[in-house]
Amino acid sequence: MALSKEPYRGTRDFFPVDKRIRDYLFSVMEKTALSFGYESYDGPILEEVELYKAKSGEELINDQIYSFVDRGERFVAIRPEMTPTLARMVAKVHREIQKPIRWFSIPNLMRYEKPQRGRVREHWQLNVDIFGASPSHSALEILQVVITLFKNFGANESHFEILINDRNIVDAVFNQLLQTSAEQNYRLYKIIDKSKKLTPEALEKLINEVQLSEQAKILFKEYLNMSSFDEVQTFLKTHRLESSLQEFSTFLELAKSCHITPFLKYDPTIVRGLDYYTGVVFEVFDKHPDNRRALSGGGAYAHLLKIFNEESVPGVGFGLGDVTLRDFLETHKLLPNFDVASNDIALVMNDPNSFVALNQLASSLRSNGFKVIQTLDCLNFKKMFPFAEKKGALFIGFMGGDEVNQQTIQIKNLGTKEQTSFQLNDLEKIVNHLKNK
Amino acid sequence: MALSKEPYRGTRDFFPVDKRIRDYLFSVMEKTALSFGYESYDGPILEEVELYKAKSGEELINDQIYSFVDRGERFVAIRPEMTPTLARMVAKVHREIQKPIRWFSIPNLMRYEKPQRGRVREHWQLNVDIFGASPSHSALEILQVVITLFKNFGANESHFEILINDRNIVDAVFNQLLQTSAEQNYRLYKIIDKSKKLTPEALEKLINEVQLSEQAKILFKEYLNMSSFDEVQTFLKTHRLESSLQEFSTFLELAKSCHITPFLKYDPTIVRGLDYYTGVVFEVFDKHPDNRRALSGGGAYAHLLKIFNEESVPGVGFGLGDVTLRDFLETHKLLPNFDVASNDIALVMNDPNSFVALNQLASSLRSNGFKVIQTLDCLNFKKMFPFAEKKGALFIGFMGGDEVNQQTIQIKNLGTKEQTSFQLNDLEKIVNHLKNK
Repeated sequence: MALSKEPYRGTRDFFPVDKRIRDYLFSVMEKTALSFGYESYDGPILEEVELYKAKSGEELINDQIYSFVDRGERFVAIRPEMTPTLARMVAKVHREIQKPIRWFSIPNLMRYEKPQRGRVREHWQLNVDIFGASPSHSALEILQVVITLFKNFGANESHFEILINDRNIVDAVFNQLLQTSAEQNYRLYKIIDKSKKLTPEALEKLINEVQLSEQAKILFKEYLNMSSFDEVQTFLKTHRLESSLQEFSTFLELAKSCHITPFLKYDPTIVRGLDYYTGVVFEVFDKHPDNRRALSGGGAYAHLLKIFNEESVPGVGFGLGDVTLRDFLETHKLLPNFDVASNDIALVMNDPNSFVALNQLASSLRSNGFKVIQTLDCLNFKKMFPFAEKKGALFIGFMGGDEVNQQTIQIKNLGTKEQTSFQLNDLEKIVNHLKNK
Repeated sequence: MALSKEPYRGTRDFFPVDKRIRDYLFSVMEKTALSFGYESYDGPILEEVELYKAKSGEELINDQIYSFVDRGERFVAIRPEMTPTLARMVAKVHREIQKPIRWFSIPNLMRYEKPQRGRVREHWQLNVDIFGASPSHSALEILQVVITLFKNFGANESHFEILINDRNIVDAVFNQLLQTSAEQNYRLYKIIDKSKKLTPEALEKLINEVQLSEQAKILFKEYLNMSSFDEVQTFLKTHRLESSLQEFSTFLELAKSCHITPFLKYDPTIVRGLDYYTGVVFEVFDKHPDNRRALSGGGAYAHLLKIFNEESVPGVGFGLGDVTLRDFLETHKLLPNFDVASNDIALVMNDPNSFVALNQLASSLRSNGFKVIQTLDCLNFKKMFPFAEKKGALFIGFMGGDEVNQQTIQIKNLGTKEQTSFQLNDLEKIVNHLKNK
C-alpha cells in the first residue's frame, strides 16, 4: 500500500499560500505586541505531565493531552497550552527581573480534539501576559493590546465586541448572595459557561438539578439576565455587595478615560472556569451572525506561581488562536490576498548563453536588497510572462541572442508594460529603475 | 515536592534575550531564502511513524525517535527531521504546480539524543530545497543560497568552507573500481563518514575489518587521501572512470563562472549516508580551530518521492541547525548584541494624574508605527532612566506636576541627552521629533 499523502488527522499542512497567511497573522500579532513593549519568549514543545496536572487538574490530562513515557521513563506531554510553561519560566526569573514583566509568544499547541470547523488538533495561539503591575492598569493595557491587534487587522467595533465581567462580582454573588456550596458553585459555573447555547427550557432544567433554594434560583436567574454594568451595579447595591465592585469600577473608569468602552459589553455569563482567574475576565466575540463565537479570552489571575511555591504575582493575559482568527478575517473579508508570492524581478533565461550573466546580475541585485527569482532552464517568450506573474514579480528581465552579444538586458515593468534596455554592467541604473516601480 | 522550574531534559527555554537571538537567526534565514524566490511552507509537528520508516529505515525509528500510540491507535512521532514531511507535501502537489518548486521551512525537530555541546533534543533547522530543475544548476543555486546566507550573517571565506563531493564519483570508485559487495559498501561508507575523527591506526584497523583485497585496500586509501578536484580527476582518468565525472565537471565550471569556487574544497570523505543522495553532496565547515565541525549539509537526490510511488523528481537541498549556527556566530563574534529589547520611547508616569494623558499619547504614537512602553505604576526620577535604558528605549517621555497642569510633556533623547518640551496635543511635532533620532 502506498503511503498516505495526507497530514496526521486534525493537523494542517501549510503549503506556501497558507503559510503566507499564517506568516501575516503572526507578523501582525508580533508587531502589535512589540508596539506595547512586550518581549517574545518560547519554551519547549514537550513538558513533563506533572506540570500540566499541577495547573489544570486531571481532566485535561485524561481527555485531551498527547502524553507518553519517554525512553528515560519520564512522563511527558506535547504542550496543550502555553500557560504552564509561562508559569515555569516566570517562576524561575521573576525575583531577578524588573516588573512589570511583559511577555508574548505564538506557540503551536496540541489537543486530542474531534476535528470540526474552528477546532483542530494542532493550532497556534498568541499568548500575551503582563505580571507585577496594578491589576486595573494591567487589565486596561491587555485590552488595549487586544483592541489594537484587531484594529491592526483592519477590524473595528462593527466586527467584534469584548464581553467582560469580573470574578469578584461572580464570587460575591455565589458565596455571599446565593450561599451555595463548593459543589453547587462548580455546577453553576458549568451552567453559566454554556448558558448562551441553551434553550430557556434546557437552562431551567439544568438549574433545577443543582437544587438551589427558591430564593437562590430567582437571584441566580436575575443575575444571568443582566446585560449592562449599570444593571449589575444596582443589583449588587440592592444586596449590599458594593464592595465586590470596587476593582471593576476603577477599571471601568480607566477604560472610559482611555476610550475603549465602545468595544466593551458587560456580560454576566463570562466566567472562564472555576479556578485560575481572580479579577477581570473577558472574551472577544465575532459580531457576524454566521460566525458568532469567541475568538479570544483572558483575564486577571493572581496565583499562577502557586504550583511552584512562589509568592503571588498578579498577572493579566489573553490567548488568541490562529484558526478562529483566520475564520474571523475571512468572514469579514479582512484578509489580504496571498495567492502569489512576491518577488521584485524574475530573470528569465531564453538563451542558454545568458545563464552566467543573469546569475551574476541576480547576485548583485540581491546584495542590493531585491528579491530575485532566476529560471534555471530555458523558457520561451510565451511561457516567461505567465511564470513571472505566478511568482508575483514586478519586473521581468531577459536576454535574447542580441542581448547576449551586446551584454545588455531587457527589463519590463509588468505593471506599466514599459520595457527598457540596460547595459549589464550598469548596476546603478538597473537598481534605480527597479526602485522606481 | 515543588515542581521543577527547569525545561524538559535536552530542550531549551527561550527567555527574551535568547528568543531575540533566535528571531534574528530565523529572520536572516527567511530574508535570504526569499531573496532567491523560495517560498515558506510548514507541516504538522506529528506524523505517522510509517512515513519515517519508509524514508529512513528502522534505525532512526528505534533509537532516536519520539514515538507513541495516540488515543485512536495511530502510531505517531514528533518529527525528527523535515524531509519526510516535505516529500509527502511535494508528492501531493508536484503534478499540479509549475517546476521548479523552491521551498524553505524552519521547523523544530526532536531527537532522543544524549545532550552535549551542539547537540540537544529539540532544535530548529532551516531546510531549503529545489525540485524539478537541472541538477547542476540546482546545486549551484543551493550553494549560492548557503553562501549568501553565511554572508548575510557577516561571515566570509575566512570563517567557513564548503567541503564538496559527488556521489557519482564515490559510487564509481566503490562499484567499478573496488568492486565491493553491498555489505562492504555499507561498512566503507560508515568508515568514510567518520574517517576524519579517527587516528591513522584506528582507521587502518576498521579498514582491515572490511576484508578488502590488498589492491582494493590500497585504492580505497588512495581515494581517501585526495584533497583536490584535480587529484580525483587524474585518479579517475587513470582508472578509466572519467564518465562518473561528467555531472560534477559541469557543476564545477558553473561554480567557477559564478564565482563561488573560493568557498569550495573537494573532500572525498563527504558522502552523507548510503541512501538518499545521488549527486553533489556537501557540508559547510567552521574553519575556526576551536569549533571545527559541520554546520550544514546537503546535496542532490533523485528518489525522494519513491516512497509514494511517484515518478522521480530531481531535487537539491540542505539543512542548517540553529544550535551549531549560533555557536559558529558566537565563536567568530558575528552575533549582534540582543541583551536589551528595542523600543522607540518609554512613557514614564511620575505623577498618577499623568496616566491617562500618557496612555492617549502612547496610543497615538503606536498608530504612527512607534514602539511605546508605558509604565503602569509611578516611577521616580531616579528609577525612570535605568528603566528606559533596560527597555532599549531611544527616548523617554514624562510629565511632572507642572506638565500635568500645562498639558505638556518632556521628551529626552537618551543618546544625545537633549530634552525638549512639547504640547501634548501637538502630535505631529512629537512624531517628527521621534523620527529624527
